[in-house]
Amino acid sequence: MDALRTLADALSGLPGIGRRSAERIATYLARHPDDRAAPLLSALTEARAQLTACSICGSVTTRTQNPCALCSSSTRNPALLCIVEDPADIPLLERSGAFNGRYFSLMGKLSPMRGQGLSDLRFDALKKLVAAANVTEVLLALNADVESDATASFLRYELLRLFPRLRISRLAWGLPAGSAIAYSDPVTLGRAIKGRTAL
Amino acid sequence: MDALRTLADALSGLPGIGRRSAERIATYLARHPDDRAAPLLSALTEARAQLTACSICGSVTTRTQNPCALCSSSTRNPALLCIVEDPADIPLLERSGAFNGRYFSLMGKLSPMRGQGLSDLRFDALKKLVAAANVTEVLLALNADVESDATASFLRYELLRLFPRLRISRLAWGLPAGSAIAYSDPVTLGRAIKGRTAL
Repeated sequence: MDALRTLADALSGLPGIGRRSAERIATYLARHPDDRAAPLLSALTEARAQLTACSICGSVTTRTQNPCALCSSSTRNPALLCIVEDPADIPLLERSGAFNGRYFSLMGKLSPMRGQGLSDLRFDALKKLVAAANVTEVLLALNADVESDATASFLRYELLRLFPRLRISRLAWGLPAGSAIAYSDPVTLGRAIKGRTAL
Repeated sequence: MDALRTLADALSGLPGIGRRSAERIATYLARHPDDRAAPLLSALTEARAQLTACSICGSVTTRTQNPCALCSSSTRNPALLCIVEDPADIPLLERSGAFNGRYFSLMGKLSPMRGQGLSDLRFDALKKLVAAANVTEVLLALNADVESDATASFLRYELLRLFPRLRISRLAWGLPAGSAIAYSDPVTLGRAIKGRTAL
């Protein structure tokens, strides 16, 4: 059953997939060779052949369109740069329709626990991009945990300090849409109060 | 970016992977073509070539060993049959070291919500196996939700009624090991009280 273990190994550690999920998915794929494993196999083959990292923002694009559609779009404001941890966050932000600048993906965050340090993130590429592209405003679209906070602080007080006229902002903290105060945690409520908006 | 969407489609719906996780994993795989996508690709290819469903219990085995190791083991008690929903549950039960019979996987449970009905589960194969293998005791190792309860009832009062001398049991309900009463829900506590064991 080495083949099953090898498949579970290859799945384990993908985003959101722990060891036990990986074993479950491997078993499922082995039990569904034609309707599930085969399409995944061909999709992976095609993705490997066609996709690559955008040379500017670092997110996924096709080999025939590099820089990616967002980076080469003439209708987006190049002076506005949104920094994300993970390129998969970009489509989620795009769906909000609230941002019309360009993106840059760090490919992670400062995380000593997971062995991600300064040299593992795309800080040098970011520095070069901000310097070259006449960026005037940076929006940090990082997550809301301690490691993302540390990454935001590093960007704010170290890396982006080189550009004194840059405006730097971060996504607002507060109540998620559709939620209730009854189910909010104290930290979220505290931040929602501090960041209250005038009506 | 059709290749990325196709990859997300192929991942979406695998056990525990919803649409958003699938997009995240697809992006990750596209960004890690050599260290993550390539091993997964070769593991899938190998799994498709080498693995198949055991002709008796329905769980995963190699093409060179069918029936599987558990079904063909001479040290396991063939009169004792453990029925699971999913073959991925078998290694978890095996790790407990508390069962020495054989297994049978239904490949799901009765679930009108997900369109799984009588004809989608391996009920006919189960009937044949119990009749042919001189099974004297059946342990239902199903999950603890409503659909699993319905499946257990169907097995107990319909399908296995054909075998009047069969002893039928189900996994005990109660406190999980290492847990505290403070964090238990009322249903679990009620079941733990009803099923209390004499000391």
